[in-house]
Amino acid sequence: MTLLLSNDEVDGLLQMPDCIDAMEQALRAFGDRRAGNAGRCEILTATDRPDALYSLMSMNGVVPDLGVAAVRINSDILTWPASERGIKRVKVPSAPNGRYVGLVLLFSTATGEPLAIYPDGVVQRMRTGATSGLAAKYLARTNASVAALLGTGWQAGSQAMAICAVRGIERIHCFSPRQDGRQAFAAEMSAKLGIEVSAAATAREAVRGADVVLCATNSMQPILPADWLEPGMHVSSLKRLELDPSVVAAADRVITHSRNADAPAQIIRTDGADLARDSDLEKAALARAIDEDALPTLADIVLGRAAGRAHDRDITLFLNHTGLGYQFAATGALIYRRAMERGVGRKLDTDWFTSALPS
Amino acid sequence: MTLLLSNDEVDGLLQMPDCIDAMEQALRAFGDRRAGNAGRCEILTATDRPDALYSLMSMNGVVPDLGVAAVRINSDILTWPASERGIKRVKVPSAPNGRYVGLVLLFSTATGEPLAIYPDGVVQRMRTGATSGLAAKYLARTNASVAALLGTGWQAGSQAMAICAVRGIERIHCFSPRQDGRQAFAAEMSAKLGIEVSAAATAREAVRGADVVLCATNSMQPILPADWLEPGMHVSSLKRLELDPSVVAAADRVITHSRNADAPAQIIRTDGADLARDSDLEKAALARAIDEDALPTLADIVLGRAAGRAHDRDITLFLNHTGLGYQFAATGALIYRRAMERGVGRKLDTDWFTSALPS
Repeated sequence: MTLLLSNDEVDGLLQMPDCIDAMEQALRAFGDRRAGNAGRCEILTATDRPDALYSLMSMNGVVPDLGVAAVRINSDILTWPASERGIKRVKVPSAPNGRYVGLVLLFSTATGEPLAIYPDGVVQRMRTGATSGLAAKYLARTNASVAALLGTGWQAGSQAMAICAVRGIERIHCFSPRQDGRQAFAAEMSAKLGIEVSAAATAREAVRGADVVLCATNSMQPILPADWLEPGMHVSSLKRLELDPSVVAAADRVITHSRNADAPAQIIRTDGADLARDSDLEKAALARAIDEDALPTLADIVLGRAAGRAHDRDITLFLNHTGLGYQFAATGALIYRRAMERGVGRKLDTDWFTSALPS
Repeated sequence: MTLLLSNDEVDGLLQMPDCIDAMEQALRAFGDRRAGNAGRCEILTATDRPDALYSLMSMNGVVPDLGVAAVRINSDILTWPASERGIKRVKVPSAPNGRYVGLVLLFSTATGEPLAIYPDGVVQRMRTGATSGLAAKYLARTNASVAALLGTGWQAGSQAMAICAVRGIERIHCFSPRQDGRQAFAAEMSAKLGIEVSAAATAREAVRGADVVLCATNSMQPILPADWLEPGMHVSSLKRLELDPSVVAAADRVITHSRNADAPAQIIRTDGADLARDSDLEKAALARAIDEDALPTLADIVLGRAAGRAHDRDITLFLNHTGLGYQFAATGALIYRRAMERGVGRKLDTDWFTSALPS
């Protein structure tokens, strides 16, 4: 049968340390050319609403070592509202019951069959967190104990989980512009992680003295000036625009998740789809900042093909700006194995999703 | 709710004339940049079997004019057995119950929601046929009455349906190497189309005197020598290798379904995936034959941006070698509308495939 899982079920099955292990195994396979990633494929078209676009996005990955292939699909209504902090890309939950449409389809590389279908909400942030965690495992000082977390949204939670999974973190100082938001996040994560998570009054205060600085905002403006960096820090970033180019220049070692050349994105905009400005801004910022295609990748580090941290005083920087399909295959293998072990999920007839006809 | 349909249900919903109309509407939108196509995205990896690869393929298209977006996914075990007529790519039905894995997921461009899920078996050949039919509608002589059909397999059936939908075809002469196969096909299609379909003893005999020549083989060798062409013929081809370059040179007008540059394919082969030789052969043949990227496309013809047939004696050639996502959106819109009208299909809870979480 084919398993149908909900976000809540996926959440109960995925533990961050397991995710980091699975991600490492998949990334090794990718680096050794046993696994394959396709870049993000996105089509943007106009809609009946002048302020919205429709976006169909897919991202594929195959990891035979884990026995699975994954297709992640997003079908979204997107808007770009202006705020005082810039223009942001915002998904509008327009599906019935005010819901979002993001799916992962998991297939067997041994038989081709569909193993599982589940929403991408939980896994989307777990895979991002696990990738940052894997980078920190290889790049952060082994005695790192204090982390700063800039951003207290959905992605920030998994960044906190991930750093705690790979280092003996004792305290996290978090910051985001809204006081109530950062305080609620601090309380929630303290309880969840069992360590001290406190809300700092400013970003400067959060960063000062930290061993690891995790940037997890969707800011359109740089949030971390280079003169806040301290010797020995490990920094990671989820969005290009949140990172000032001077930070890149100041780091001793800069590692990217993936070179664009390894899995080039294919972005197609039809006429009328010119609202998609954040991509343009991101690209421009990237061009200003650094050529990521010239950097060593996380796979290079994990496989020992590029040098990571050489000294305790080095400043290391990990650019987690690009998603890859292998991340969904790695987490998918884990979700499927755990779900089968525990009997979780709705069992659908696999014949529903297969065919007696070739095609 | 989200509709789950079987191949049999899809077959009952799709009529070739409707398909050709939907394809034309979608292609016009594509040509006018209101619709978007992503090229084929394929990842090929080694398997435990030395003679087989695993392939994950997806193809996306968005046609807001029709209100839909489609993702077509194939998850296949592939082999390349040698035969006396060359090496062929063969899918192995390895999913439970000896089945194939090809799916279409259809989404609404208005709300993003998943509208329908169905296997791609029936639609795969209907969209190919409809595209050849649309080309013949614009390129074949209006008084064409005799068609030759080279190949009597799965794809050949929809080629026959398509030419009958756009021209007053009175006779079809079909040929394929196995006598029993071509005779069975002729009997089946005579009954289905209500015209004379006869099995020719040779390809030469099938082609002689035909107004339209439909090549629908999976031959690795050219099947149609240029000196068989007659003034006024319209020729179409589904596979690059079946077409001798001299045929391309001999045609007065050559039209391609799509330029590679319009929707470039992304093909990723991991180490060990060197069995995928047919793609290499196809590419080499293409390079020998003609630069398809320099040709006018079917959209150019339909939109009147390129000249089609100028004279009754012109030989026209349509290269239907590349699949595009818009074909699955066009047929999908039709399938969904008809299924809703007729109450066909299994109704699944849309919440199964959507999420309260953004991603």
